Amino acid sequence: MNKYSSAQIDTAPSLTGRAGGESSIIKVGGAVVEDPVQLSILLDEFVKIEGPKVLVHGGGRTATNLAKQLGIESKMVGGRRITDAETLRIVTMVYGGLVNKNIVAQLQARGVNALGLTGADMNIVHAHRRPITPEGIDFGFVGDVDGADGAKLLQLLQMGITPVIAPLTHDGQGHMLNINADTMAQTVATSLSSSLSIALTYCFELPGVLRDPADPSTLISHITESDFQALVADGTISGGMIPKLENAFAALRAGVSSVRITNISNLQGGTIITL
Amino acid sequence: MNKYSSAQIDTAPSLTGRAGGESSIIKVGGAVVEDPVQLSILLDEFVKIEGPKVLVHGGGRTATNLAKQLGIESKMVGGRRITDAETLRIVTMVYGGLVNKNIVAQLQARGVNALGLTGADMNIVHAHRRPITPEGIDFGFVGDVDGADGAKLLQLLQMGITPVIAPLTHDGQGHMLNINADTMAQTVATSLSSSLSIALTYCFELPGVLRDPADPSTLISHITESDFQALVADGTISGGMIPKLENAFAALRAGVSSVRITNISNLQGGTIITL
Repeated sequence: MNKYSSAQIDTAPSLTGRAGGESSIIKVGGAVVEDPVQLSILLDEFVKIEGPKVLVHGGGRTATNLAKQLGIESKMVGGRRITDAETLRIVTMVYGGLVNKNIVAQLQARGVNALGLTGADMNIVHAHRRPITPEGIDFGFVGDVDGADGAKLLQLLQMGITPVIAPLTHDGQGHMLNINADTMAQTVATSLSSSLSIALTYCFELPGVLRDPADPSTLISHITESDFQALVADGTISGGMIPKLENAFAALRAGVSSVRITNISNLQGGTIITL
Repeated sequence: MNKYSSAQIDTAPSLTGRAGGESSIIKVGGAVVEDPVQLSILLDEFVKIEGPKVLVHGGGRTATNLAKQLGIESKMVGGRRITDAETLRIVTMVYGGLVNKNIVAQLQARGVNALGLTGADMNIVHAHRRPITPEGIDFGFVGDVDGADGAKLLQLLQMGITPVIAPLTHDGQGHMLNINADTMAQTVATSLSSSLSIALTYCFELPGVLRDPADPSTLISHITESDFQALVADGTISGGMIPKLENAFAALRAGVSSVRITNISNLQGGTIITL
């Protein structure tokens, strides 16, 4: 007897009635996920978010620490890790295993039905290995993202599942690839934006974009694309904040409803980004 | 506008029509998954299996090697790893990250829509931390399995997904737990056996259960529960083969259709286990 077709698909009916409700993509960086106290605060806040939600995490500091313990040098170029075969093993262990499953277990303990994923799982995130740059830099097993499968992510959300996504995917030829976590969050948000109203939140250690990183009272509450160009030109915004904001604008241009940059204890505050 | 309810659930119609078809749970041990050549042979065979299928893997040797590199001693009692907090980090990295995602990427490259899971993901496998034994042995973060959620696994199979399951789950209180991979395979097989006809295959480096482990021609083609008792009594079956066979009989008693013990290149051969 074939009993295979008899089970019901659970379509999480409590969510389908949320007329006008937003779905949330929260990205948390390494400094948060690697500090047990900060991670606990973040997860307590994350649990309170209503509606479908996705958590995207980093984990670079733990990877750097493990590499150091194993005597492997971490080489960074422009904020991106050069990912040779040994380093790929480390980031796959740390991002896909240690950090991801630690978050999943802690969300399950809070009653959230978390599912840890890389982009390779269910082939959710498509990418290709970054070509050697014109300057001759070979980033190794670093991926440039081509897009995410929003229909599959939507299906998981409809099942009442909360995806927890590590910044990894695969090349379609059997190798994992290291992906920038901010870009992963933007890609996931963008892929869902044709089906859902998506609020994307970049969550890190500061209260938002600051004129003076040492002074929280200098929070810039709202940044448009033309503000951004001026703030980069006058040096207020620099370093890793530039690609983060570029990801924010890319998400907005692709149809994401709102983007903010804030810290873990103030998910509704921080800096709002608009086009 | 709420677009949340508009997408279709993909129910993998090509599978629902398989009247009388079997679903396969394949368990592969560390010696196979940690050797790239053997893993490739196994995955080529796995891809050929028709119908819904699940891969459950080990990875203990890689965990032992990483522990050694990090200066952490691996302590085993009765074939089970004493899993203190440091060792839990290692097995979570190796089983949940490195081994699991390597298999997922290689299955995706072969066109199989693999999804890497631990028992914590989607809360699929329920377990409790093993109590300190009467002899005073504290296994640490080792789990004794209470059961698996067959309905959720069935839902994934119906979506055309191939779960790849690492021998880890969680304690419901935010910690991961280390699980015996043979027991994980038995639990997963048992949980699906009320909905599907399940063939469980324990796949390892030998051609099956041998009278003389050094001589493949001494393969025992069929073992019943009473044979098993006699073979243990006369010393033919010993060590890690005893719990493997106990798991096999537990699966059969719980409704799994067939169990065999074989090697990677002969998934339809080896030793057949019956009650």
